[in-house]
Amino acid sequence: MTSDGAPRVERDGDTVRITMTRGHRRNALSREHLTQLLAAVTDAGGTDATGIVLAGEGPVFSAGHDFADVAGASLPEVRSLLALCTELMRTLQEVPQVVLARVHALATAAGCQLVASCDLAVAAESAGFAAPGGKGGWFCHTPMVAVARNVGRKRAMELALTGDVIDARTALDWGLVNRVVPDGDLDDAVADLLGRATRGSRASKAWGKQTLYAQFDRPERDAYTHAVDVMAAASQLPGAREGMAAFLEKRPAAWTD
Amino acid sequence: MTSDGAPRVERDGDTVRITMTRGHRRNALSREHLTQLLAAVTDAGGTDATGIVLAGEGPVFSAGHDFADVAGASLPEVRSLLALCTELMRTLQEVPQVVLARVHALATAAGCQLVASCDLAVAAESAGFAAPGGKGGWFCHTPMVAVARNVGRKRAMELALTGDVIDARTALDWGLVNRVVPDGDLDDAVADLLGRATRGSRASKAWGKQTLYAQFDRPERDAYTHAVDVMAAASQLPGAREGMAAFLEKRPAAWTD
Amino acid sequence: MTSDGAPRVERDGDTVRITMTRGHRRNALSREHLTQLLAAVTDAGGTDATGIVLAGEGPVFSAGHDFADVAGASLPEVRSLLALCTELMRTLQEVPQVVLARVHALATAAGCQLVASCDLAVAAESAGFAAPGGKGGWFCHTPMVAVARNVGRKRAMELALTGDVIDARTALDWGLVNRVVPDGDLDDAVADLLGRATRGSRASKAWGKQTLYAQFDRPERDAYTHAVDVMAAASQLPGAREGMAAFLEKRPAAWTD
Repeated sequence: MTSDGAPRVERDGDTVRITMTRGHRRNALSREHLTQLLAAVTDAGGTDATGIVLAGEGPVFSAGHDFADVAGASLPEVRSLLALCTELMRTLQEVPQVVLARVHALATAAGCQLVASCDLAVAAESAGFAAPGGKGGWFCHTPMVAVARNVGRKRAMELALTGDVIDARTALDWGLVNRVVPDGDLDDAVADLLGRATRGSRASKAWGKQTLYAQFDRPERDAYTHAVDVMAAASQLPGAREGMAAFLEKRPAAWTD
Repeated sequence: MTSDGAPRVERDGDTVRITMTRGHRRNALSREHLTQLLAAVTDAGGTDATGIVLAGEGPVFSAGHDFADVAGASLPEVRSLLALCTELMRTLQEVPQVVLARVHALATAAGCQLVASCDLAVAAESAGFAAPGGKGGWFCHTPMVAVARNVGRKRAMELALTGDVIDARTALDWGLVNRVVPDGDLDDAVADLLGRATRGSRASKAWGKQTLYAQFDRPERDAYTHAVDVMAAASQLPGAREGMAAFLEKRPAAWTD
Repeated sequence: MTSDGAPRVERDGDTVRITMTRGHRRNALSREHLTQLLAAVTDAGGTDATGIVLAGEGPVFSAGHDFADVAGASLPEVRSLLALCTELMRTLQEVPQVVLARVHALATAAGCQLVASCDLAVAAESAGFAAPGGKGGWFCHTPMVAVARNVGRKRAMELALTGDVIDARTALDWGLVNRVVPDGDLDDAVADLLGRATRGSRASKAWGKQTLYAQFDRPERDAYTHAVDVMAAASQLPGAREGMAAFLEKRPAAWTD
């Protein structure tokens, strides 16, 4: 591991772990770092892994954009940086694997957006979450797209307008993370939740995840139209047939897809 | 009562109670059972009742689709089954009565979708809720349309991806049910909440319920346009006139619609 | 102060406080009162204040529409009253200032909608919240547009259908308000939260607030498209440049916009 290098990518069984290692830079999302993370997530998406863990090393999970990239940058430069960042967030949702954020410490701005954009999130008790742009000069417009889709409206306004840090228990209460555990139990809790979330047919889960994101934002009637189409088609897949046969024959299922 | 028959339908004062009685089949939503439930809800919707209670008998509230209906079924067969199920869910929202799920035990997959699709839900402490398709081979695509509109995004992802059961207190905390009470108090709690929810003008309430569902999924500006239209028209109904007159004259209202 | 007059408008430092003073009428939102409140909020929006506090005097925060305005009114009259009310709610969101509701007591119907429509809300422990139309003859159609965008669906249905009052702690748990404090601490809590929410560049905050409302209701992809456009443009504003420069130079920022 080098402290300035690309994210560390490790395969452990069915899981790909992607770790931000620029701890001395607070895992800031520079253009280079965003490009590397996007490549790492895209590559992991192409493997046969069932889960991806996004983690960070050092004193913070991620502090978001690197102001050194933005201060003095032109409008087109900033736009392309934000488009790259948005592509990373979207890719976390588009890969077929279950993506889980392992949040060991403070996650702010686009770092908080990373947590909000992962399918699931497990936080250590000493983690914290903030959208600090609101108390400065550059508002967290794009981070709030992801954050506001996890918490209620008044809470989104509070995070965005105050820029204050909420602690891990508050984030759990507000629905921004799925678990909060003592710092020393973080890896066990990550393994436990990811293990539960990756059981079953891999193909079925991939369809499931993508259909969830497709239906979340649609009016209910359109969401049903799409979900009925996908669920009917999914019933013909090997995983569905095997799962139902195993259930009816009272035997364990053997997933082939 | 026959254990294999159609849902039991009972009229008690202003309430129609529809009880799934296939307890030995875990109140699975076979094509026949869905058809019977749809007919029962539609019929109840045409009565002058003010409330509908959806209940189940036996060890579970409802286990969702019957795999015996789906295993080996063709794509068109599964599609028509899911369309029928969706029509039941939509009808629960479209009838003019307040519809309340009485959840005495486990509600899974489309059984959990039934709870999510009712206007209100009261659960016994021993109830539980799950979308188990995610840990098998056939993902709960359509149940999650309803469930995700009751709970936050991260919680929806957790339910869908893990397939794990959440207990009644967690369901209350996440907003999937309105009340949790000791098992022995379930009927009292159902009667209390339904009584509170069915006070007032019946016509006004029916317009109210339908406008709520119409506006939930719309952008705020469109929601206001629709709600202003309905509320202005509603001001001319006998119930509104009587309610306001009674208030101004400091007397009890006598509802005629 | 006159008890029948227009809302009292006071400037205190960077804050405009707008106080409803028709306590003996429960701060009911008559056509005249709505017109006055809309003028007061619009005027405050045109000042260089950074925050607006909306408060009420007397035994309730606001009881919503005045039935004396509606009973016997024609459809066009009611429609224009509701359009005026909706314009007030929208204006609370459109002004560049952070708008905070100071809820010292009961807020019902369009009074509850006022709370739901402010960016932030702080409640005293003795406050309460209700949409009572559902238990009468004129359903709270338009108040629920705002309320349902703050709380979950089952909770919105419960509020709307039962008309019951929830207490301040429940409102906090459901996300309708940001803080609940003992009655005697209300002004301190209002000042604290508003102070936190108005730090930083004023122009940046105004863009931020407006972009939040613009993105809340959009599908995620459209929300990102809009947020990226605004955030890139915002990076070129004096506030953003100053904020980033100050951060990189480890000095306090001096906001000029």
